[in-house]
Amino acid sequence: MTERRHTVLIVGASAAGLRCACRLARLRPDWRIRVLEARATFSYAACGLPYVLSGDIADPQALRRTVYGVIRDTAYFAGHKGVEVLAGHRVLAIDTQRRALRAEGPDGECELGWDELVLATGARPRRLQEQPDHPRVVSFHRWDDLEPLRRGLAEGRIDRVAIVGAGPVGCELAEAFHSLWGAEVVLLEEASAPLPGILDPDVATCVAGHLRANGVELGLESPARRIEVVGERVALTVADGTVEADVAVVAVGVQPAVELAREAGIKLGTGGAIAVDERLATSAPHVWAAGDCAEVHHAVLGEPVSLPLGSLANRQGRTLAEILAGRPDRFPPVAGAVAVKVFDCNVAATGCTLSRARERGLQGRAAWITVEDRAHYWPEAELMHLKLVYETGSRRVLGVQAVGKGDAVKRVDVATQHIAAGGTLDDLAHVEHSYAPPYAPAMDPLAVAAQVAQNQEDGIEAAAPDEALDDGTRILDVRLAEESAARPAFPDRAMHVALGELSSRLDEIDPATGLVVCERGTRSAEAVRLLRRQGIRARYLGGGLRWRALVEESGAS
Amino acid sequence: MTERRHTVLIVGASAAGLRCACRLARLRPDWRIRVLEARATFSYAACGLPYVLSGDIADPQALRRTVYGVIRDTAYFAGHKGVEVLAGHRVLAIDTQRRALRAEGPDGECELGWDELVLATGARPRRLQEQPDHPRVVSFHRWDDLEPLRRGLAEGRIDRVAIVGAGPVGCELAEAFHSLWGAEVVLLEEASAPLPGILDPDVATCVAGHLRANGVELGLESPARRIEVVGERVALTVADGTVEADVAVVAVGVQPAVELAREAGIKLGTGGAIAVDERLATSAPHVWAAGDCAEVHHAVLGEPVSLPLGSLANRQGRTLAEILAGRPDRFPPVAGAVAVKVFDCNVAATGCTLSRARERGLQGRAAWITVEDRAHYWPEAELMHLKLVYETGSRRVLGVQAVGKGDAVKRVDVATQHIAAGGTLDDLAHVEHSYAPPYAPAMDPLAVAAQVAQNQEDGIEAAAPDEALDDGTRILDVRLAEESAARPAFPDRAMHVALGELSSRLDEIDPATGLVVCERGTRSAEAVRLLRRQGIRARYLGGGLRWRALVEESGAS
Repeated sequence: MTERRHTVLIVGASAAGLRCACRLARLRPDWRIRVLEARATFSYAACGLPYVLSGDIADPQALRRTVYGVIRDTAYFAGHKGVEVLAGHRVLAIDTQRRALRAEGPDGECELGWDELVLATGARPRRLQEQPDHPRVVSFHRWDDLEPLRRGLAEGRIDRVAIVGAGPVGCELAEAFHSLWGAEVVLLEEASAPLPGILDPDVATCVAGHLRANGVELGLESPARRIEVVGERVALTVADGTVEADVAVVAVGVQPAVELAREAGIKLGTGGAIAVDERLATSAPHVWAAGDCAEVHHAVLGEPVSLPLGSLANRQGRTLAEILAGRPDRFPPVAGAVAVKVFDCNVAATGCTLSRARERGLQGRAAWITVEDRAHYWPEAELMHLKLVYETGSRRVLGVQAVGKGDAVKRVDVATQHIAAGGTLDDLAHVEHSYAPPYAPAMDPLAVAAQVAQNQEDGIEAAAPDEALDDGTRILDVRLAEESAARPAFPDRAMHVALGELSSRLDEIDPATGLVVCERGTRSAEAVRLLRRQGIRARYLGGGLRWRALVEESGAS
Repeated sequence: MTERRHTVLIVGASAAGLRCACRLARLRPDWRIRVLEARATFSYAACGLPYVLSGDIADPQALRRTVYGVIRDTAYFAGHKGVEVLAGHRVLAIDTQRRALRAEGPDGECELGWDELVLATGARPRRLQEQPDHPRVVSFHRWDDLEPLRRGLAEGRIDRVAIVGAGPVGCELAEAFHSLWGAEVVLLEEASAPLPGILDPDVATCVAGHLRANGVELGLESPARRIEVVGERVALTVADGTVEADVAVVAVGVQPAVELAREAGIKLGTGGAIAVDERLATSAPHVWAAGDCAEVHHAVLGEPVSLPLGSLANRQGRTLAEILAGRPDRFPPVAGAVAVKVFDCNVAATGCTLSRARERGLQGRAAWITVEDRAHYWPEAELMHLKLVYETGSRRVLGVQAVGKGDAVKRVDVATQHIAAGGTLDDLAHVEHSYAPPYAPAMDPLAVAAQVAQNQEDGIEAAAPDEALDDGTRILDVRLAEESAARPAFPDRAMHVALGELSSRLDEIDPATGLVVCERGTRSAEAVRLLRRQGIRARYLGGGLRWRALVEESGAS
């Protein structure tokens, strides 16, 4: 008779579950670690799926391989990791009193007992209210979602695609369908701009223009009210008519998969995810949760939220293994950093948007900059547009959003450290970075943004890049004459005095001047300061005419 | 009779001095801000000079232009910034009692009084002990240093260059001379590896191999004992003979320019820079210092150091303006983040090296990882080699060094935030990053490095990538058979058992096994843990055979 080993059952073999299992097997080789997984194919890099569709990744199996080329299947986890994965086992119910679960596998139903249970059930795609159950109306979330679309594209049966939802997956798919296969893409978004919740509209508008410039038909404020399959086509009813396509991909986000937890009476949080404490313990003793099905604590909002991100799932899985092994770890609050590649526009954001900050009753304000990602004289320098959100009064940094061909991601990753630590504008103005012309400007863009916000708190105020301007607003253009000639702005309305001449011509300036403009917002901010000496209280255009041009191109404002 | 305005004199019109002047002119338009500068050409981006030589930047004037194309000359500072720059004015002496300085300008000597004096005198190139004063033996630091070399290269008079010192400037120049002009480059370094002080030898060795692979003749442990000009050539005496070249560039670092301060009795620090407090005040009342001539407080070493970095100079200049304007700012301690591009190898480092930590009596240890900068299945992912230095016991992170074609700079910038804040391994293991396959792996490389260090503190110990191995060390190779066949390692000595089979073949393993190896150090670390169950106390090769191969190619170890 063998001694009964301490048993940890893990439900779900994706990032959180498997990270937890493998780490725990290393820390506690004497324990029995079993992972139950409903599907046959597991442990693939789900975030890579759009790039298989796009052709960036030639072989889908690459998503299942380790760096040394071994497929991560049941044999791999048994041999390399000491972890038993029961693939094709769907868990039917858990009994937290008896510490046992019922599962249905290839050989029928079974009951398994545990000492500790980990719920790593992930998330599933949200569906539209009346979404037909048909192969032409699909989601794109799992391994099995890939092949039908790839085949349809390769065989020429999909020439036109309607994507419902311009979130990260919707934007990635728009690129994927369009760039390799040349399919026509209609991207429909309920909100007024893409990537809602991640970007404020004034930032998202840059992405909207970029999508359109790359040939995507972007429909904003266009919820898909109904999807019908009509013969070989789908027809989507939107506000102003009907959109037809060969296939509709519904990408309206995901929701935590919490049925097992709910049925077992485990507490759920406000966002619908499983409520956990900082040690990832659920409300039921000996039941834990990690990954997309579990809450995280938001560092800025100060409350639990559902944030289904692969980076967090991986880290939660490992943390939970540490905790189960008896170590003093905990999962700290997160800023919610995300990144999305949209064609050759880099998009990254962290903390919370201005819209969200205000919804939560925070006294949010914003500062905008348009800046090169490297020394401006470096030939490969690229522009980026960065919005810093902060709380006036406390001066706490609440969020950063950055978009452009420039390296937006680095700045967001650095800002994340400050935001998670509760840093202020004044801390961020002193952010240290490693500088050489091929990598960064001498003053880090985050420091510049914080300085711009500091100036704003001193009264040098910016108008948002997408602010609707009153026809009567008096505008002062402080660019060089050749800049204004090359890229006219407000041609019928603006007075021109180049910044270099402004201090000697202050008395010529209309005292009713409301807005000062320049290319990036730097010179116009200095001009606003000069005008104050004259008693003129103007604002400048945040992010400058470069940002404004993106707003105008996108059709917003 | 005009009222006497509050006057701030600034000595030195480079980054710190001009940043301070321009900001102060905005904050205090009623004050008189005057900058004295010995040279005629000023306010150029000095860090960009090597890239003019390399041809990356076609027009040297690009280094003097604003983003909107205006040359930053005296008229620019007067018109745009309200700052008076007295170019060609060399300051001869300062009298801190009388608050007056004597300067020599185009029109003879003059005396100027101040209310506040800012010393922003920068740094100057170090010279060798017996360095001939000859146009063929030059430094590369200032605007005027550029043209003679450019002309010599363009006119075919410079075919072979000897560079003395493989610090950042030496490495950048090696690329500059070689890549555009195809000149033969001999790079001589006194230390055993390039970039001493910035990188430990085990990391620097990757850079050494890269320099050699790009055609640079790299002489290590080769101080230039003597330089002689012989006709049209220079002859450098090194340990094992003589190096001849058309020109010798001495790039052995810079030293703070502190003569004025010293002669005025202002206190200097141990590193030879002007001692300042966190408000950048010197020991003399109403005298301040910023930039390369001033000390900064090192966050890891906990003491003042001389760190001549453009990023710090810019930020110090602005900070000093805030302070002089009466605001409650201060210049916080720095981690000393630096970045250097060496051909297509990215090099970045922050905090302190292991060597330096140990010199200072800290209980430093290191962890090494070899990892892709993005999802490993992303086609454009590139490797990087990252060394994490920490203090055992306190577990405080002391430094990070990263090199490779991968994005080393981003990780160093993020680590800098943790190091400056005194964070531990356990904090860094939870570092949050924005993840998408084109930008990062799902688990941030910094988190992985911290986890590797945590494991080491649990007894899973690594050997350094450049550790000299005893002939008798028993080696276990846990790679797949095909990997070992394709890239043999220790072919006569290593036993092979792939990780996937190891747990079932533990009893075959030689109990005297001392070192476990794999490609990157990940599998071998897991193997070390398995061996411990068998009572075998082996170490693994940190950074794996990939890193070791770079050490061996470079000729070290």
